[in-house]
Amino acid sequence: MDVIKPYKHGCGYSYALGAFPTLELLHKRPKSTIGVFVHSSFPEKDRVEALCNEEGIPVWYNDKAIARLSDKENVFVIGVFRTSEQRLNPEEPHVMLVNPSNMGNLGTILRTCLAFGVHDVAVIAPAADWYNPKVVRASMGALFSLRIASYDSFEEYVSFASGVGREYFPFMLTAGRQLTIGECPKAEKFTLIFGNEATGLPMSYAAVGTPLKIPQSAEVDSLNLTIAVGIGLHHFANLPLDK
Amino acid sequence: MDVIKPYKHGCGYSYALGAFPTLELLHKRPKSTIGVFVHSSFPEKDRVEALCNEEGIPVWYNDKAIARLSDKENVFVIGVFRTSEQRLNPEEPHVMLVNPSNMGNLGTILRTCLAFGVHDVAVIAPAADWYNPKVVRASMGALFSLRIASYDSFEEYVSFASGVGREYFPFMLTAGRQLTIGECPKAEKFTLIFGNEATGLPMSYAAVGTPLKIPQSAEVDSLNLTIAVGIGLHHFANLPLDK
Repeated sequence: MDVIKPYKHGCGYSYALGAFPTLELLHKRPKSTIGVFVHSSFPEKDRVEALCNEEGIPVWYNDKAIARLSDKENVFVIGVFRTSEQRLNPEEPHVMLVNPSNMGNLGTILRTCLAFGVHDVAVIAPAADWYNPKVVRASMGALFSLRIASYDSFEEYVSFASGVGREYFPFMLTAGRQLTIGECPKAEKFTLIFGNEATGLPMSYAAVGTPLKIPQSAEVDSLNLTIAVGIGLHHFANLPLDK
Repeated sequence: MDVIKPYKHGCGYSYALGAFPTLELLHKRPKSTIGVFVHSSFPEKDRVEALCNEEGIPVWYNDKAIARLSDKENVFVIGVFRTSEQRLNPEEPHVMLVNPSNMGNLGTILRTCLAFGVHDVAVIAPAADWYNPKVVRASMGALFSLRIASYDSFEEYVSFASGVGREYFPFMLTAGRQLTIGECPKAEKFTLIFGNEATGLPMSYAAVGTPLKIPQSAEVDSLNLTIAVGIGLHHFANLPLDK
């Protein structure tokens, strides 16, 4: 198979555009990798080929297929992989995204989750499709290190993923409690909940757990979603001080 | 003047694409506003026209010009404004961006500065052009509430904008000191310094002020620039707890 059609939601496979996301794919999901397209002019062909050979993954030299799939982007390597349904780990901290709609944002958020050591992301539908190549690329391949699962409602998520000791923190502009430096709630097993880019969380989330607001000036109506997620994770991640 | 050519760096004017950024322009920079294009099908024409009349700003109904300037985006209002050189306020906190290259990121960062009450942004050239309509749009018009100035080097900035009591905080992955919750340096008059999206800050900044690192997992090579700026500002902004 070195003929592949452009991605469509639910088609069973997707692709990682670019050498960096493809290397992440090969390292993290070799068993899901169907094959790798390499452009005849790519200078590090040998390295990609060696990695693929180790795992028995086919390498295809097909410049036309790359041009067709890469959609104007300047790309020399494309990793093709099988998509699959995943389950979150109910013992781990989660980030929940309610109706995220922008694919670039979604990819950046996935990468930020990984940067703060959160490996489980719950998505409440309707939402952007995280297997879309645009999201994969925006995540720089972080997607391959995460478990991501979709739920039809918050209630469905709770019945599936919840358990003893999980605490919920919806981020809302209307929250009474502010997330300030030095005053972050402590929680081992948390779910940080963020709404849609334009509309935020539905008011029903005000009754869930401990709603939090990131202090901001009145000169801007709200923070960019990706930045709110970054600040929330920075507070809760409790990363060990390395080095 | 209701014929206007597409934006070029240095042409002396630019435009705000969309009703929201244009309203920001009319509120914050009425004296710099040359005129406003309104699409004949825009439902809130009357409101825009009333605002423009108050300030003696011409309104142009020219659907063709809007189509030409808006470049595929779905836009009904375009505010045209004179660009101008600005000076930072040397008494205020600053954010410094060294060689930022992505226009969407730059707009998001400008909006984030305003959200955390920082009104002065120093840009070290070469850098993306903040008057490009893409940046104006990504900032959602936040640009019109900020002072932004370009410098050829850090030294030039220091000689111009520095003064008694300013402290410098370059954000670098190699910094020894980590910016953790509860351990943020206190500074009244600060400059937070961030490097290029792909390359970070040049090593020479390691000798400037107090370099800081945002703790992150080793699974991602670095945080997205916009998120690093958001976290840095959240720490330093010391916003009063409103409401």
